[in-house]
Amino acid sequence: MALWSGRFMENVSEFTQRFGASLPVDKALYAQDIAGSKAHAKMLATVGVISEDDAQQIAAGLDRVKADIESGDFMFDINDEDIHMSVEKALTAEIGDAGARLHTGRSRNDQVATDTRLYAKQRATDLMRANVALRHALIGQAEANFGVILPGYTHLQHAQPVLFSHHMLAYVWMLARDYRRLQAARDAADASPLGAAALAGTTYPLDRQMTAGELGFASVIPNSLDAVSDRDFLLDLDYACAVSCMHLSRLCEELVLWSTSEFGFIELSDAFSTGSSIMPQKKNPDFAELIRGKTGRVIGNLVSLLVTMKALPLAYNKDLQEDKYGAIDSAKTLEDCLQCAAGMIETMSIKPENMLKQAKLGHLAATDVADYLAKRGLPFRHAHEVVGHLVLLCEQRGCNLDDLSFDDFKAASPLFEEDIVKALDLPSIVAARTTEGGTGEAAVAQQMEKAKAVLAADESLL
Amino acid sequence: MALWSGRFMENVSEFTQRFGASLPVDKALYAQDIAGSKAHAKMLATVGVISEDDAQQIAAGLDRVKADIESGDFMFDINDEDIHMSVEKALTAEIGDAGARLHTGRSRNDQVATDTRLYAKQRATDLMRANVALRHALIGQAEANFGVILPGYTHLQHAQPVLFSHHMLAYVWMLARDYRRLQAARDAADASPLGAAALAGTTYPLDRQMTAGELGFASVIPNSLDAVSDRDFLLDLDYACAVSCMHLSRLCEELVLWSTSEFGFIELSDAFSTGSSIMPQKKNPDFAELIRGKTGRVIGNLVSLLVTMKALPLAYNKDLQEDKYGAIDSAKTLEDCLQCAAGMIETMSIKPENMLKQAKLGHLAATDVADYLAKRGLPFRHAHEVVGHLVLLCEQRGCNLDDLSFDDFKAASPLFEEDIVKALDLPSIVAARTTEGGTGEAAVAQQMEKAKAVLAADESLL
Amino acid sequence: MALWSGRFMENVSEFTQRFGASLPVDKALYAQDIAGSKAHAKMLATVGVISEDDAQQIAAGLDRVKADIESGDFMFDINDEDIHMSVEKALTAEIGDAGARLHTGRSRNDQVATDTRLYAKQRATDLMRANVALRHALIGQAEANFGVILPGYTHLQHAQPVLFSHHMLAYVWMLARDYRRLQAARDAADASPLGAAALAGTTYPLDRQMTAGELGFASVIPNSLDAVSDRDFLLDLDYACAVSCMHLSRLCEELVLWSTSEFGFIELSDAFSTGSSIMPQKKNPDFAELIRGKTGRVIGNLVSLLVTMKALPLAYNKDLQEDKYGAIDSAKTLEDCLQCAAGMIETMSIKPENMLKQAKLGHLAATDVADYLAKRGLPFRHAHEVVGHLVLLCEQRGCNLDDLSFDDFKAASPLFEEDIVKALDLPSIVAARTTEGGTGEAAVAQQMEKAKAVLAADESLL
Amino acid sequence: MALWSGRFMENVSEFTQRFGASLPVDKALYAQDIAGSKAHAKMLATVGVISEDDAQQIAAGLDRVKADIESGDFMFDINDEDIHMSVEKALTAEIGDAGARLHTGRSRNDQVATDTRLYAKQRATDLMRANVALRHALIGQAEANFGVILPGYTHLQHAQPVLFSHHMLAYVWMLARDYRRLQAARDAADASPLGAAALAGTTYPLDRQMTAGELGFASVIPNSLDAVSDRDFLLDLDYACAVSCMHLSRLCEELVLWSTSEFGFIELSDAFSTGSSIMPQKKNPDFAELIRGKTGRVIGNLVSLLVTMKALPLAYNKDLQEDKYGAIDSAKTLEDCLQCAAGMIETMSIKPENMLKQAKLGHLAATDVADYLAKRGLPFRHAHEVVGHLVLLCEQRGCNLDDLSFDDFKAASPLFEEDIVKALDLPSIVAARTTEGGTGEAAVAQQMEKAKAVLAADESLL
Repeated sequence: MALWSGRFMENVSEFTQRFGASLPVDKALYAQDIAGSKAHAKMLATVGVISEDDAQQIAAGLDRVKADIESGDFMFDINDEDIHMSVEKALTAEIGDAGARLHTGRSRNDQVATDTRLYAKQRATDLMRANVALRHALIGQAEANFGVILPGYTHLQHAQPVLFSHHMLAYVWMLARDYRRLQAARDAADASPLGAAALAGTTYPLDRQMTAGELGFASVIPNSLDAVSDRDFLLDLDYACAVSCMHLSRLCEELVLWSTSEFGFIELSDAFSTGSSIMPQKKNPDFAELIRGKTGRVIGNLVSLLVTMKALPLAYNKDLQEDKYGAIDSAKTLEDCLQCAAGMIETMSIKPENMLKQAKLGHLAATDVADYLAKRGLPFRHAHEVVGHLVLLCEQRGCNLDDLSFDDFKAASPLFEEDIVKALDLPSIVAARTTEGGTGEAAVAQQMEKAKAVLAADESLL
Repeated sequence: MALWSGRFMENVSEFTQRFGASLPVDKALYAQDIAGSKAHAKMLATVGVISEDDAQQIAAGLDRVKADIESGDFMFDINDEDIHMSVEKALTAEIGDAGARLHTGRSRNDQVATDTRLYAKQRATDLMRANVALRHALIGQAEANFGVILPGYTHLQHAQPVLFSHHMLAYVWMLARDYRRLQAARDAADASPLGAAALAGTTYPLDRQMTAGELGFASVIPNSLDAVSDRDFLLDLDYACAVSCMHLSRLCEELVLWSTSEFGFIELSDAFSTGSSIMPQKKNPDFAELIRGKTGRVIGNLVSLLVTMKALPLAYNKDLQEDKYGAIDSAKTLEDCLQCAAGMIETMSIKPENMLKQAKLGHLAATDVADYLAKRGLPFRHAHEVVGHLVLLCEQRGCNLDDLSFDDFKAASPLFEEDIVKALDLPSIVAARTTEGGTGEAAVAQQMEKAKAVLAADESLL
Repeated sequence: MALWSGRFMENVSEFTQRFGASLPVDKALYAQDIAGSKAHAKMLATVGVISEDDAQQIAAGLDRVKADIESGDFMFDINDEDIHMSVEKALTAEIGDAGARLHTGRSRNDQVATDTRLYAKQRATDLMRANVALRHALIGQAEANFGVILPGYTHLQHAQPVLFSHHMLAYVWMLARDYRRLQAARDAADASPLGAAALAGTTYPLDRQMTAGELGFASVIPNSLDAVSDRDFLLDLDYACAVSCMHLSRLCEELVLWSTSEFGFIELSDAFSTGSSIMPQKKNPDFAELIRGKTGRVIGNLVSLLVTMKALPLAYNKDLQEDKYGAIDSAKTLEDCLQCAAGMIETMSIKPENMLKQAKLGHLAATDVADYLAKRGLPFRHAHEVVGHLVLLCEQRGCNLDDLSFDDFKAASPLFEEDIVKALDLPSIVAARTTEGGTGEAAVAQQMEKAKAVLAADESLL
Repeated sequence: MALWSGRFMENVSEFTQRFGASLPVDKALYAQDIAGSKAHAKMLATVGVISEDDAQQIAAGLDRVKADIESGDFMFDINDEDIHMSVEKALTAEIGDAGARLHTGRSRNDQVATDTRLYAKQRATDLMRANVALRHALIGQAEANFGVILPGYTHLQHAQPVLFSHHMLAYVWMLARDYRRLQAARDAADASPLGAAALAGTTYPLDRQMTAGELGFASVIPNSLDAVSDRDFLLDLDYACAVSCMHLSRLCEELVLWSTSEFGFIELSDAFSTGSSIMPQKKNPDFAELIRGKTGRVIGNLVSLLVTMKALPLAYNKDLQEDKYGAIDSAKTLEDCLQCAAGMIETMSIKPENMLKQAKLGHLAATDVADYLAKRGLPFRHAHEVVGHLVLLCEQRGCNLDDLSFDDFKAASPLFEEDIVKALDLPSIVAARTTEGGTGEAAVAQQMEKAKAVLAADESLL
């Protein structure tokens, strides 16, 4: 017999019961549901809607239900439709009529919104913690390998030499932004819908500020219709996960590339590699690929909720039951991905000699040669063209810029002096990029301090 | 100890083992995995790679493993990573070395592609069956209520009267197209990758035609790299589900509208309605809303796989492990939605009097009045304007077109004769739409025969 | 001859030139490009890389180019590939070698990032302004119609009566959240990449703080690789647009519903309605539908950029050229939609009598009758069941709850007293919902003040 | 004055006129609109609704309008809202009342559906043609470089050696599937909605078969509601484009990888490469990156239309106006991408020596060594482990499998004989993969014939 059976003459079938049930998904919210009910009951007693005795029975009963669930003894029944009814039915079985008074002045509409917001806040915090851990891992590699030179790429072509540490820090900044989005998602969830009831508020003298305070919400949602129909906070969480996963897909793409025979810049630890069922020699960067692949899932979850919300009239509609599975999945997926990425980064070993070997190919000094001419008065556009011709000469000869003779340079432009040779040395090229945010050692050292300060500040919020 | 452990000195951690495992998802494919292995073993014996005795042991062993799984006795172990290893390990435990010979000339790459294709074919067929059932339900309502007049809408404004049956048949045609897409998805899956091995084929004299035939595949995939990296067939299934779910969202939007107090065109049966935990009077079209809401999920799954596939180099990459959960979910979701929609349609009762009451509002005869003038020689564009002014007159008087006097008509245009009145009668308006595909009874009766013939032909393919 | 031609022996074809060109899209950024170049030139002179005279020539030349573009005299040439080259070529044509010195210490990679960020900041601000205007329109209707009662819906079924003003304010709060997301997008764009050069910083003593200050950026991006490859700020803008458009789709769904013959709650002004080419009586809520439909486009744009960014290695890749068209389109679309929605809301007329007529149907008092019993000691769950049976009785008799006799009530529960009748009066039901955020007049009046205060604070930021 | 003005007292504003207009997008359909109108007029005369003279005037007038548009003389006016009114107004200006009779028995609803279907058919055919051209290019490279050995990859790790031709053909098969999807999209569009009028058919004795035949449609849509509200054919086109673009993103990812200094497998021609504004040495695979990036846009367009269609009630809604821009953009984008990819493939030069150098690294013979043992009786799983240990030995020594001595092999397993050396030779390894679809020369030669036969058959359909 469903909780709303008075008006009905026929029950739904077993199939529709299963189809309509959200229990397999929302049982993940049992702790939030119980916390919300305890706060509601305590408040009902305080404002005199139920007795103190009822409130205490309810609180004690809910604690027992929670213990049952956590011990694994609780028998979930799909006929209870959702976690709210599962808990309430168990409570009423435990304590009788007092349990039947719990739902006074409350609807599943504000109840589910409350549970989901509490859950979203918790998961956002978990993700912020995992985000911090990955930043530590990246900074750890950046510090441990300070000075190592990597060919910097644009278009995956060698562009200019950069510090490996500079490259690692680029990801630290992406993650710092991800942290802001997770914070925003947490803040979006941080307002209490409890007391909005079905859609219009109630006739009971509920103290919404009190329940909000009990549950740790920063504020009370000011409109009851909005309170039961808003799912922006889940979208914000889905979105924060999607962008962060996209960032991880970039990092993992590079880990996969760097692990190839062709690049050979890193070796992932055995603990983060797998083999092949048929090819005995294989050591595959499976986990980096898997994280990259999971970006699809997390973006898909964001799309799902946007589509579901499109064109829904106010206030609550059953479509909203579809809100949670995606957010639960995205949060779980991102948390795993962040943890896995941190493990991969911490345990990988880098091969500076291979990085350097590659950095010597591809005329990485070309920009500096053009700058050399520009600093001697040639407009940069013309300098660029001169060096372009020198590079073409190298390509035709099958050599590198630093294999050219001084005569070759002089023939290209009379502005070249003997000191041009110095402009072709990789460490000098790196060091010369002294501008703020550039790849010169001093600039990177400063940047590292900044990144650590931001991280420390973020960490202090957890 | 993993199946590829020879080359490794360290195992993955418990966390990465769980993170990398596909078992929770791909155990749904146990039957396909076992069928594929039986076919492979039989062929290996036929071409002489393993002994007949080994092949028989393998077949019998696999049958026992399957029985174990289906009886619920099988203990899945997350450390087995995927269904392939779960089954193979259990087999080897059963029969020893013969089991260890099964994987000869095969890789998990072609094995998983084979399993997934078999699964996709089966699910596409299931969906085709559910599609047929919903069409039967719609045609049933169309036949049972032939002659009932509904206000036809454009822009959700009353436009012209239509037969309720005509409206139901519109959805039948959408579903007929969905059936084609499901067929296309099934056909896309219907080619055998088995024998492609890891990526390049094998050195064993495998008979790929034989295994394809054993497994009921229509053909053999002609390129081994493509065989292990192609997931188009899952995209086709995801897409077929997405469009069909979108169609159901349109139907369900109308069921929700028609169930409102304001429209009142239908009443859903209690078996497909739910109540409220707080509002005792509520009878909610929950299941229609839920189907509408699930459209988000199914579109999201399509996006997920497209994102995952983007920019993957050949051949197999671990990202592909993410291919299945979305397709499994979409197929399950759509199958449930089709079944639920069929139930709702079959059991709903319609309220022709409310439909007719509404059809009398909104000047549904206006087009016919314009046609009346046009048929008497006034260019249609001018006739349109004359009737527009008559409608404005009605709006100002708060009446309907058929409340106007003949003098009102005559004042608007001297072309009006007394027979204009007939043009204002709803059944006549409907009946006059005699063109092929129009809403006149005769045309709809013909259309119904066509729809039933298409349905019968589709059904004969199952 | 392309700007990078020194090293090449062959030019791209006309087709590839067109295919590769971003000019048709990025010419929208001409003003930002010119502002960025002026700031760069001024700084170059300040730090002594170019002469003061060059800087002044450049500034004056750029002003002339800008005037040309704005007068429509500028001839864009697809062979210039992008807006950066278009402007620079025109500048060099104007002032010669000084123009060729402008690009010193700069790359198109940091240039395009700078331009795009300036553009995104501007568009976010425009959208914040349009957001504010729509909130004014909604509050205007809420104030003008204070006291009007609307049937409140859940599942599009009559649930409980609410104030029309309360319903309007629900959208105001959605828009207030949209404003936060737009602010976040603006803040995300508000950091200067200029000086990051191609990917690694430069060898010139650039003052990045100076150019950031000149251009009004709040800070300097601390990592050059990140500076040229980060597009989070566009994702944030795309996302803010997507959610806001989703909110508008909900509002417009309701406007479409309310404009139907069946609901009849509002009439949109002629200025925001259209007719039909064939049906002279039609008055269609075209603009509400169009806004609802455009939600697809804006969500699609968000997906596009997420897909494009997936798995891109550092630093700049040409894929990023695809970043702008979607954000430009989303911002334009949302701005139009907000403006159009504001116009519709401002000019619509409401029909309180139709709202009231519907509010009287559907047993909207049922919750209050259950509360009545619960307040007299019956546990709410039991009270709910009693009222459910009363509603079923009404449905069978074809009447409403307030048509029942006191005897009917008494027969259902001995707890009913004569004052039950008062519980059935719509204005009393509304007024009784006194909790914070509820639909009672006093609560809504307080809410209105809060909404206006938030709006005023937001407006003060523009 | 709008075409539906009779009933209205106020016009839409300039802003709403622009916002509501589809002309900037749908003017791309002018030729289809004119063809549709000519067919309609001819039929109207045939069935006697208009005079032969009118029909001839209309046909001649429409031809003049078309000529005007194609000469560039036609002045499009945003106030005409869409291409249909633009053309009709121009026609009426040309020929007077006869023009005003054209719209008899027709609505913009069936008109726009007709135009869009004609357009979609045309674009699908264009894309099929471009698909064929790219397959020719790939087969050309496969034939020209038959015998060249490439390291085959899984997880981007060296797996087994494959023929470069085999790798090229993998893409040919992807494109063959894309061709099927394009065909399906064309077929989906190939049914005539003309005569469905607004939503219900008409009162005129229209001959829908005749107009369908005139316009080259294969059939007549059997339900008028469906005829005006179905956009599946555009979804099918969007989807076909999305999958094909995803395939191109995979090809382009490989072109980018292969162009790196690290891989060095190919050199793209100068005609399909670009340089850098700051780095004179750069030669970037811009066009491959751009195609890869455009995948986002094309997937986004598919999402857009799915979202727009979600939950739309029947029949026509203005939301549908948003159907075209995405499909037009996707078709244009994919056509360009196919053409560009064909150019890149045709003009790239390959570097077999670099491919071979890499193929010698990574123990590509390992599978064959395991097969060697398995063929001598060791169960494959055990053989796999033996070779895994040999590979580990190589890694520790920093050598390759073929650097091991026969004693090393013998120590690992007594089953090794002297002929194990042959198993380590790359050409032998390739040649040994003789199974259907494998990478052995004979198998690839057969596969090539099959691919060419399929291509010839497809080409014959154009």
